[in-house]
Amino acid sequence: MSKEKIPYKIYLEESEMPKYWYNLRADMKNKPAPLLDAATGQPMGPADLAGVFCDELIRQELDDSTALFEIPEEIRDFYKMYRPAPLVRAYCLEEKLQTPAKIYYKFEGNNTSGSHKLNSAIAQAYYAKKQGLVGVTTETGAGQWGTALSMACSYFGLDCKVYMVKCSYEQKPFRREVMRTYGASVTPSPSTETEVGKRILAEHPGTTGSLGCAISEAVEKAMNTEGYRYVLGSVLNQVMLHQSIIGLETKAAMDKYGIKPDIIIGCAGGGSNLGGLIAPFMGEKARGEADYRFIAVEPASCPSFTRGKYAYDYCDTGMVCPLAKMYTLGSSFIPAANHAGGLRYHGMNPTLSQLYADGLMEAVSVKQTEVFEAAEQFARVEGILPAPESSHAIRVAIDEAMKCKQTGEEKTILFGLTGTGYFDMYAYEKFHDGKMENYVPTDEEIAKGLAKLPKM
Amino acid sequence: MSKEKIPYKIYLEESEMPKYWYNLRADMKNKPAPLLDAATGQPMGPADLAGVFCDELIRQELDDSTALFEIPEEIRDFYKMYRPAPLVRAYCLEEKLQTPAKIYYKFEGNNTSGSHKLNSAIAQAYYAKKQGLVGVTTETGAGQWGTALSMACSYFGLDCKVYMVKCSYEQKPFRREVMRTYGASVTPSPSTETEVGKRILAEHPGTTGSLGCAISEAVEKAMNTEGYRYVLGSVLNQVMLHQSIIGLETKAAMDKYGIKPDIIIGCAGGGSNLGGLIAPFMGEKARGEADYRFIAVEPASCPSFTRGKYAYDYCDTGMVCPLAKMYTLGSSFIPAANHAGGLRYHGMNPTLSQLYADGLMEAVSVKQTEVFEAAEQFARVEGILPAPESSHAIRVAIDEAMKCKQTGEEKTILFGLTGTGYFDMYAYEKFHDGKMENYVPTDEEIAKGLAKLPKM
Repeated sequence: MSKEKIPYKIYLEESEMPKYWYNLRADMKNKPAPLLDAATGQPMGPADLAGVFCDELIRQELDDSTALFEIPEEIRDFYKMYRPAPLVRAYCLEEKLQTPAKIYYKFEGNNTSGSHKLNSAIAQAYYAKKQGLVGVTTETGAGQWGTALSMACSYFGLDCKVYMVKCSYEQKPFRREVMRTYGASVTPSPSTETEVGKRILAEHPGTTGSLGCAISEAVEKAMNTEGYRYVLGSVLNQVMLHQSIIGLETKAAMDKYGIKPDIIIGCAGGGSNLGGLIAPFMGEKARGEADYRFIAVEPASCPSFTRGKYAYDYCDTGMVCPLAKMYTLGSSFIPAANHAGGLRYHGMNPTLSQLYADGLMEAVSVKQTEVFEAAEQFARVEGILPAPESSHAIRVAIDEAMKCKQTGEEKTILFGLTGTGYFDMYAYEKFHDGKMENYVPTDEEIAKGLAKLPKM
Repeated sequence: MSKEKIPYKIYLEESEMPKYWYNLRADMKNKPAPLLDAATGQPMGPADLAGVFCDELIRQELDDSTALFEIPEEIRDFYKMYRPAPLVRAYCLEEKLQTPAKIYYKFEGNNTSGSHKLNSAIAQAYYAKKQGLVGVTTETGAGQWGTALSMACSYFGLDCKVYMVKCSYEQKPFRREVMRTYGASVTPSPSTETEVGKRILAEHPGTTGSLGCAISEAVEKAMNTEGYRYVLGSVLNQVMLHQSIIGLETKAAMDKYGIKPDIIIGCAGGGSNLGGLIAPFMGEKARGEADYRFIAVEPASCPSFTRGKYAYDYCDTGMVCPLAKMYTLGSSFIPAANHAGGLRYHGMNPTLSQLYADGLMEAVSVKQTEVFEAAEQFARVEGILPAPESSHAIRVAIDEAMKCKQTGEEKTILFGLTGTGYFDMYAYEKFHDGKMENYVPTDEEIAKGLAKLPKM
């Protein structure tokens, strides 16, 4: 199609918006491995998870055969407040790169939480409310998930307790204030509110915390507080189910204009955005109906896919969560400082892990300064100020577009732009001032993390 | 129409987007008074302004008879990157307030500059580029205009020098970094780069600057640098012309669904958003085709309309700019600290001033804590985190909706939501912590500012 025919931004009509989430697992030949109870080594059933998670979310987590889950009307109503997210044709970036490639991105930053996290937060809050719960607990690192959950809980009148990694709490006071605006209570982790927090503080006085520790505190708080459950913003299959709205909208918009992507690119931390974006496309590939190249992009400082191992591991550092089979650097792996705080998780969603193990998806790792170069280049022509996490996908989209320039191929490239960088200007400042470093773990550091994987 | 028929968000198709800006002055019986040369007292002609402003912008500034100005294709292409802005039906807010009123808002925050300022920035950058200029200078207080102009200049490959009020430069380092990301140079004002800056620094050592001082520096820099002109983000009629895109889109979207607003509300600092939003509606009123109530909302700390005087005054504190006839508190008036930095200007757009003087528009002033109460209430149900400036309009929209609740009237209320508050979390923090104060100038302070108006 000519430039005139494809608009800059493709918005679906409200009537065209998806009414079902898509559960990719239903179409996978090799299903992801089940969660295991760390004590018994047995697969977790609904009863084992009931004290921690909401009932309906457990059902979604464990169901690998139902392809479509109807999106409740209340959630669809909320989605209408900020969705459909625009699918943007990056005409200005193409022009700047002088590439024959056609570049599209699905922009998920058009909501106050600033990222795609809200898609799952609203679903999880809804099910908690429906179950008659009083509130939920969670952890947040970079703050996107905590912000999204605060918004969702505020909407449904649910209490929201966020354990925020202490260094983020101190370095990102504005994120904290956004959560407070939506009525959440935000506690720097480790705290003295939980046993695990007290233990960690005693063992490591002055520690600035970690995501693993915050998870452990949030889980403990949920289990010990009447009417509360724990919710998580990534890694789990239920989250990937909710995030399928990203891919479903994208595919509907592309189908409307007869566009078929050759390459689909997403950044990968715990996998929520990547999994959501690729879901319906990967479904077609799994069913043998179409073929696409999928590329997961991770930071070189935390390379779960490209340097990790496909093995059962703990989801949290505190080892209170179940074991999941996934690409992991080991739950004891401490990723080097990286401004893409949302991509610093040691593991990866089990479904994506299985797809990667089966060769259905590629993965690359990229260095931080290369990511910010791409971010700035993108911002200057496309206008949007991207989050550091999202910019990993931009980096590889630009790289692929430049390969097209070399070969003359008119490939169609689609990538996920997960969010905005308004709360990441400290990172941009470091980049501008030439003070940003590229940490890459040594082989010894990687080996050390992998050596501590649980024996199965 | 029933709830089912009006979507949450009304987006225009690309083909429905306005191709012309609307110059409200053409339809006004009483035209706004001309700019005067402060030295001679004579109306400013194109030649008088040529050293300061871009040629085409001067033409737009001085033309009060041409109703429609075609939007150049390059600008329309840029608009497509972030426009049409959604017209949102605030179903959730209505539900929360339990009001029979129907509330709509036009949301202008869906772009990286975070506000409507980009609508004029891109136009001004375009005309500067077309004139063959090297770059532009400007000032910024809260930072929204500086950010918008940086983006626009980056897009057209134009140099951008921003004089940022020193206290903002220091208190809002992230705003500064966004501008740097788009390639602008940002100088804290007063600086030693200009004569006026040096003079002010000598007279007031340690001063943290003011908008008036930054304007004076930016104007001097433009006049003394080959290939540069000065651009301004509000107050001027050319800016109101560009911002008419807000109202034109809103009206097109409302007409599409047969919606007619009874009350139209906008926050008023220099008047750029308010003027843009109301333009086509006020045009109908001026032509006798329809009637609407218009309400300008200003902070009680800087009440130009409600406590100022309609008189000729300087546009800047340094008195280097022409005289404009407007509602003003006097160019020497220093507004008390207020977190809505974008509403701290001593004067008001001359067109809006004439409309107010003619009784075609109302004005109210509101206190800061009342504004933040409305902001938080809005955020919790509508999801969007509003800028303090925008929240002035929210406050009065809620007040009007509550009056409808009392009377049972099903009025249709439209307000302009100019932008997002991501860079204003310090203000929200003060509000949450109960430390926000409500400054209201005393009658003596108002009288002092008005006493220094130029003698005409």
